[in-house]
Amino acid sequence: MTKHVYTFGSDRNEGGATLRNLLGGKGCNLAEMASLDIPVPPGFTITTEVCALYYAEGKRLPDAVVAEAMEALKWLEGARGLGFGEAEKPLLLSVRSGARVSMPGMMDTVLNLGLNDRTVLGLEKASGNPRFAWDSYRRFITMYSDVVMNVHASLFEAELDHLKERSGKKQDTDLGAEDWKSLVATYKEIVQEETGRPFPQNPMEQLWGAVRAVFESWNTPRAVTYRRLNRFADDWGTAVNVQSMVFGNMGEDCGTGVAFTRDPGTGEKAFYGEYLINAQGEDVVAGTRTPQPITLRQAEGTGLNSLEEVMPETFKQLLTTANRLESHFRDMQDIEFTIERGSLFLLQTRTGKRTAMAGIRIALDQVDEGLITEGDALRRIDADSLSQLLAPVFDPKEKEQLRRDGSLLTRGLNAGPGAAAGRIALNAEAAERMAVAGPVVLVRVETSPEDIAGMIAAQGILTARGGMTSHAAVVARGMGKPCVCGASALNIDEKAGLVKVGGITLKAGQDWISIDGSTGEVFAGKLSPHPSEVNQVLVDGRLAAKDSELYLRFARIMAWSAAAKRMQVRANADTPQDSSVARAFGAEGIGLCRTEHMFFEGERILAVREMILAGDLEGRRHALAKLLPMQRSDFEGIFAAMDGLPVTIRLLDPPLHEFLPNDEAGQAEMAKVLVTSLEAVKRRVQQLHEVNPMLGHRGCRLGITFPEIYRMQVRAIAEAALDSGVRGILAVPEIMIPLVGTVRELTFLKAELLDEIARVNNERQAQFAAPMGTMIEVPRAALTADKIAVEAEFFSFGTNDLTQMGFGFSRDDAGSFLPEYVAKKILEDDPFQTLDIEGIGELVRLAVEKGRGARPGLKIGVCGEHGGDPRSVKFFHRTGLDYVSCSPYRVPIALLAAAQAALEP
Amino acid sequence: MTKHVYTFGSDRNEGGATLRNLLGGKGCNLAEMASLDIPVPPGFTITTEVCALYYAEGKRLPDAVVAEAMEALKWLEGARGLGFGEAEKPLLLSVRSGARVSMPGMMDTVLNLGLNDRTVLGLEKASGNPRFAWDSYRRFITMYSDVVMNVHASLFEAELDHLKERSGKKQDTDLGAEDWKSLVATYKEIVQEETGRPFPQNPMEQLWGAVRAVFESWNTPRAVTYRRLNRFADDWGTAVNVQSMVFGNMGEDCGTGVAFTRDPGTGEKAFYGEYLINAQGEDVVAGTRTPQPITLRQAEGTGLNSLEEVMPETFKQLLTTANRLESHFRDMQDIEFTIERGSLFLLQTRTGKRTAMAGIRIALDQVDEGLITEGDALRRIDADSLSQLLAPVFDPKEKEQLRRDGSLLTRGLNAGPGAAAGRIALNAEAAERMAVAGPVVLVRVETSPEDIAGMIAAQGILTARGGMTSHAAVVARGMGKPCVCGASALNIDEKAGLVKVGGITLKAGQDWISIDGSTGEVFAGKLSPHPSEVNQVLVDGRLAAKDSELYLRFARIMAWSAAAKRMQVRANADTPQDSSVARAFGAEGIGLCRTEHMFFEGERILAVREMILAGDLEGRRHALAKLLPMQRSDFEGIFAAMDGLPVTIRLLDPPLHEFLPNDEAGQAEMAKVLVTSLEAVKRRVQQLHEVNPMLGHRGCRLGITFPEIYRMQVRAIAEAALDSGVRGILAVPEIMIPLVGTVRELTFLKAELLDEIARVNNERQAQFAAPMGTMIEVPRAALTADKIAVEAEFFSFGTNDLTQMGFGFSRDDAGSFLPEYVAKKILEDDPFQTLDIEGIGELVRLAVEKGRGARPGLKIGVCGEHGGDPRSVKFFHRTGLDYVSCSPYRVPIALLAAAQAALEP
Repeated sequence: MTKHVYTFGSDRNEGGATLRNLLGGKGCNLAEMASLDIPVPPGFTITTEVCALYYAEGKRLPDAVVAEAMEALKWLEGARGLGFGEAEKPLLLSVRSGARVSMPGMMDTVLNLGLNDRTVLGLEKASGNPRFAWDSYRRFITMYSDVVMNVHASLFEAELDHLKERSGKKQDTDLGAEDWKSLVATYKEIVQEETGRPFPQNPMEQLWGAVRAVFESWNTPRAVTYRRLNRFADDWGTAVNVQSMVFGNMGEDCGTGVAFTRDPGTGEKAFYGEYLINAQGEDVVAGTRTPQPITLRQAEGTGLNSLEEVMPETFKQLLTTANRLESHFRDMQDIEFTIERGSLFLLQTRTGKRTAMAGIRIALDQVDEGLITEGDALRRIDADSLSQLLAPVFDPKEKEQLRRDGSLLTRGLNAGPGAAAGRIALNAEAAERMAVAGPVVLVRVETSPEDIAGMIAAQGILTARGGMTSHAAVVARGMGKPCVCGASALNIDEKAGLVKVGGITLKAGQDWISIDGSTGEVFAGKLSPHPSEVNQVLVDGRLAAKDSELYLRFARIMAWSAAAKRMQVRANADTPQDSSVARAFGAEGIGLCRTEHMFFEGERILAVREMILAGDLEGRRHALAKLLPMQRSDFEGIFAAMDGLPVTIRLLDPPLHEFLPNDEAGQAEMAKVLVTSLEAVKRRVQQLHEVNPMLGHRGCRLGITFPEIYRMQVRAIAEAALDSGVRGILAVPEIMIPLVGTVRELTFLKAELLDEIARVNNERQAQFAAPMGTMIEVPRAALTADKIAVEAEFFSFGTNDLTQMGFGFSRDDAGSFLPEYVAKKILEDDPFQTLDIEGIGELVRLAVEKGRGARPGLKIGVCGEHGGDPRSVKFFHRTGLDYVSCSPYRVPIALLAAAQAALEP
Repeated sequence: MTKHVYTFGSDRNEGGATLRNLLGGKGCNLAEMASLDIPVPPGFTITTEVCALYYAEGKRLPDAVVAEAMEALKWLEGARGLGFGEAEKPLLLSVRSGARVSMPGMMDTVLNLGLNDRTVLGLEKASGNPRFAWDSYRRFITMYSDVVMNVHASLFEAELDHLKERSGKKQDTDLGAEDWKSLVATYKEIVQEETGRPFPQNPMEQLWGAVRAVFESWNTPRAVTYRRLNRFADDWGTAVNVQSMVFGNMGEDCGTGVAFTRDPGTGEKAFYGEYLINAQGEDVVAGTRTPQPITLRQAEGTGLNSLEEVMPETFKQLLTTANRLESHFRDMQDIEFTIERGSLFLLQTRTGKRTAMAGIRIALDQVDEGLITEGDALRRIDADSLSQLLAPVFDPKEKEQLRRDGSLLTRGLNAGPGAAAGRIALNAEAAERMAVAGPVVLVRVETSPEDIAGMIAAQGILTARGGMTSHAAVVARGMGKPCVCGASALNIDEKAGLVKVGGITLKAGQDWISIDGSTGEVFAGKLSPHPSEVNQVLVDGRLAAKDSELYLRFARIMAWSAAAKRMQVRANADTPQDSSVARAFGAEGIGLCRTEHMFFEGERILAVREMILAGDLEGRRHALAKLLPMQRSDFEGIFAAMDGLPVTIRLLDPPLHEFLPNDEAGQAEMAKVLVTSLEAVKRRVQQLHEVNPMLGHRGCRLGITFPEIYRMQVRAIAEAALDSGVRGILAVPEIMIPLVGTVRELTFLKAELLDEIARVNNERQAQFAAPMGTMIEVPRAALTADKIAVEAEFFSFGTNDLTQMGFGFSRDDAGSFLPEYVAKKILEDDPFQTLDIEGIGELVRLAVEKGRGARPGLKIGVCGEHGGDPRSVKFFHRTGLDYVSCSPYRVPIALLAAAQAALEP
């Protein structure tokens, strides 16, 4: 028979870390801690499988599950020496969700369950603390009503505020037992009024209501959104953890907090955390009271009281436990603890979230400490998050200027590194709306799961309340968004649409604000983002600032990645500048050099237009002769930057009309410059107009109808390579023909181009040669790759076009339905961001199989934007590609992803 | 060792009909006739393989071939008792091309080869006819110089005309030996002048020059064009037939002619042909003298002298021989013969070309005669040519009117059935140019292979000279073009651009002319084309004119096809009218009913536009409610027409912007009618604008973003089906969802549509149900057909879109390069006309395999235009499709093609 309930703690520990999928992260780690003899309040876990059963049986809990849970509850009563619902010594429970992966803030929690009008008296007696007992009861009613009975917590909070106002008391801590008692009475009335039912007094009814609520919360819109954002499967389900309560709010010898075994912001090996005396866990996370630092080091200079100072013994015990946990789990831990009358209890441990920079530092340190291997380190870093290292920062001088102008508004917690500037949005809806027009910074008192869509839309997040572990901080770091938290000087008036700080008033929807998530600074006005430190090091040259710690760590990861990966990583670059950046980032060649970009600059566009207007071959040749020396010097520059590395040059791809002006003024100007009539220009524009330019006269189709264009380009390549050679530069060009659909296009063009190369060689008495290959970007090319491979010396997948044609999605137009497709789950992801493995991936697989079947060892790469997407890169690795090529700034990501792919079992 | 030369005739007959690919049609049939003891002038054939060798060796004949030919020549001299180049008894030769398939007029022929200044005297002596000898010599010089030495024949013809003028003689027959002799001298001077070399006197040089010229002619542009038009492979090559001459021009007891064993125009079983007394074969084909009829029956009422009358014995021998040949080859024969001094020789026999109607009649008669099987008959008819039966004819009343007006200009030979009207073009170039603007009739004195492009461009062809076997007649019939030949009353002045006949003068490029290729009538002015007889029978109703002979034959073929085929044939039809036509033609259902066409008519477009302008769901529902009754009545009409047969209805497919006016006037009108502002209309037009509408927001993507549209359509289908049932009509709708790329689109929409059907059933207490399937027209759908088949109850390939996306060709734009692609042989065919089997066919094959793998027995059809293309239909049969669907007028073609596919071994 399937087991549905697993106990943990005390003398009966049935689970462990290996049962993560079944017990969820929380449940399995509680059992694991108990097995290490770490103090954990005992309890039991109802498995994730029950979540599926619950929905399968029409939202009903199977009898067998109920029976097992009742048995576990009986054991728990015995273990704690308390009775569930018993008036004298009541057992109180917490009920919490727990999926296999931590989803902060997404799932609902109920504490103090088991309290009712009778047991509250027992708690009062047992604790000797009436204030604590009635505070616990009112907290329970608030949480339970909100989560299980759908009575919004704000109704209760309004009463609390009302009471404070009436009594002239400011803080919760100023309230006494009688205050809480009277509130409990009011709260029960609210529940009766809102639901038409009394607040449940039967503890069993409370328990099953809470369990059901946990399962229900699995499918709330916000949970579904979070899963989609994080690509978690809907059928994982959540477990339910039922745990006996320990109390951090029984008095001044109690407390609760969260801690990280290393600094999640910087990665420094320093114990780090926050706590509150006489509080329950929710107080820390919700940010309603500003937490205190755990260590003396953290508290230094703040005037705050650290746990290390206040409870030195408990602190020592906590530190030892934390270190044991990190060693045991071999990764940085994020732990929750409660201190009940001086005794420490661990409520949770999990792998801690961290910034990209912290992630790198931690992984490297752990390798150096012998805790993990280099491979472990590479596997642990989220490749995509490397882009955070390259995210913009503000220019120090510009910041200094604003500071002198008095525009430094305040300083909050540096909760999410990176810099952002944008107009102020005071809620998620406004952020989403405004983001269409330009950058936005979401400014909130605090954030909640309802704000996720707005956080996605915003460039950065700024909150007035909450610490480093508040919802805003945790979620922003996960998203790689700059975030400043707890900037308590901010006075936010959402209704009036104003943010006041000091004497300055900013208008939402209008005024700009700039935040530096690495320093916590908040500025009025608009700062311009600049490349990050790593980025600067790389852009300015390979040797500059080599002693930057950040750069050295980054370089170490890159070196390990380079050693571990099998695939080459190249870059898409069209200029010497981009080529240098790419090379500095570790690119092993250029996988896509688009020649058309070279046609737009300055004088050239005139020659291009002259060519397009020419009525005959002679006229086109005349104009192309002007382009030849420019194109040749473009290539020389790129060859110099990539000296010794391959450069794949794609011949002209876009339709000719892209080079002509669309507006009458531009056309008139063009007519004037080229000494022709406006009518002639208009006529040509009209002739070249296409209904579906994506599927029109472009790519090799141009090469076939106007071979002289491709001949000019190949001549420029050959001459540039030969000239480079004279200057001691090793040019390694590869000639790539775009948009091939049938092998005969390639046959035809190869003959033309080889003839042109032969002419150059003849003129110069030289021996230039270059491999000629093809883009695979038309579905038909993939389907007939065996035929094409007979002529092509290499393949390069153009997965952008392959996706457009394979799906029949125009990238320019799909905006009208793609977001709805993702929202309705018709597509898991935007296929232009992550390769659609099932469909477009099948074309890739087929083409690789057919291509190598016809030409064993055929070199195959990819040069679409998917070449810089980690999940796509892993697919390309599995499919046997030789290289991926992506934009220079994604080269590090592709390198790491390629290494991770090679390290996959 | 490979044999390169095969002798035929006399005592050494090395070939036969089975060696067609090696010896060509002419060569193998000459050998076959010789083996039947039919009198054939002996000779030898140089094989088609030598053609390839010739080109492979840089246009050189291998020594081995030369040696073999010399040995065969020696044998031939012995067989004829003559000597090649011998002064006394000279052996003269004809040298003719001969590919495996007859290519009339495409290849060059040289007669009387071996004549020179010495042997002409021997011929004079041997024949006792100096006029004949010198006439033969001047013919030889003309032909040889034209074909081998590149001296245009017109130079010689001008001299001949000059001589006639000078001497006051009108006809060639008026010229005597001395005249020809003097011309020979002049001709030799012309050759010397034009080429700088004397006319070759060495017979061996003449022979090898002619052989090379035959091989060279294989690759003249006109030959290449003809092959492309007829889809013949370039590597087949041509054989060379070297045959001893017999002479039809030695006197009044000589003659030459061509004959068909049945009438090639009507198919009637009647011996049929034309001849000329005292002439060489070229005289008949070139149309320079109007030929005489062969049979008394043909001559009846013409006052002409038939061969049957003039040479009754020879005629009888010819008739017997012809009948033997038809029985032997089991098909209608087209034969060439020469009578030398009363003796009959067969120069060639081949399967005769025929009109579509004749082809059907011949095949049916031959089945009735027990000559061939029904299967043979079906295999023999070119399916595409059935469209000729449906080609337009003129309305008899309209013709009568023109006749009364005196606009019947003249009557020529009814050389190519069908009717055509157009402006007059006097040369091919003008025809091509004018055809862009409207229909054209090409009017020529006679046509030659140079005119092919103009003939393709013209609606019909009219010539002043030439018989039923002239170039114009043969080629026009092959193309299915209406043609009237030998309308000798026409006086054509190409230079002045005028056609005069009787007192009427017509201007080229301006005036209209109408020709009836079935009657030979030529009218001044513009007659309107009407559906053909078969067509009328069918359109007016299935029973009308059932006794029409033509219709009965057509129906018999259709009945055999229906019995022989495996695949169903359905039609693409959107109206009750089209549905009736399709059903009358034998369609077994509607494979594609496009619902969008119904949205354009009258009032409806207003409701459609109202829906598009609506800002919300309510507004759209309001407009859709107006469309519902109209859409329902559309379906009722179609269900009634197709009573009992399946009707596959495709839900809305095109992007919404197609329903909005593009011009400001239309937009203003729309704003007025819908009581909104012009700005609102413009804004919506702008919103809906797409860069690549082909790949945009259309098909099921509309259904997913606006489910209410598809719901309305499915409701209309369900209600119409139920209403039809009440009226005793069996509606069999199938619901087809367009542009599906992933199974989840189908999952989503099926749920919506099944819900709507459930509502209808609930409202009406009914049990309506219909299968729901999908178009396979997006490459990704084909690649993931296994997934899609889980939801789809049928597949229907949209091969138009599959071709557009698979190739990345926009049909609207490909005109700028596709013609060049076909010309440069990068594509064999326009892939929108004939399915690209290698690439797009691979997608079809994959989808069938995957689809049936997931859902055994899945019904699969095709509803693109390829469903009416015979070669594509055969591929669909081989690939296991259940049905093809095409336009109503191509249903007969598809039925026959489906039968032919089933009959393929």
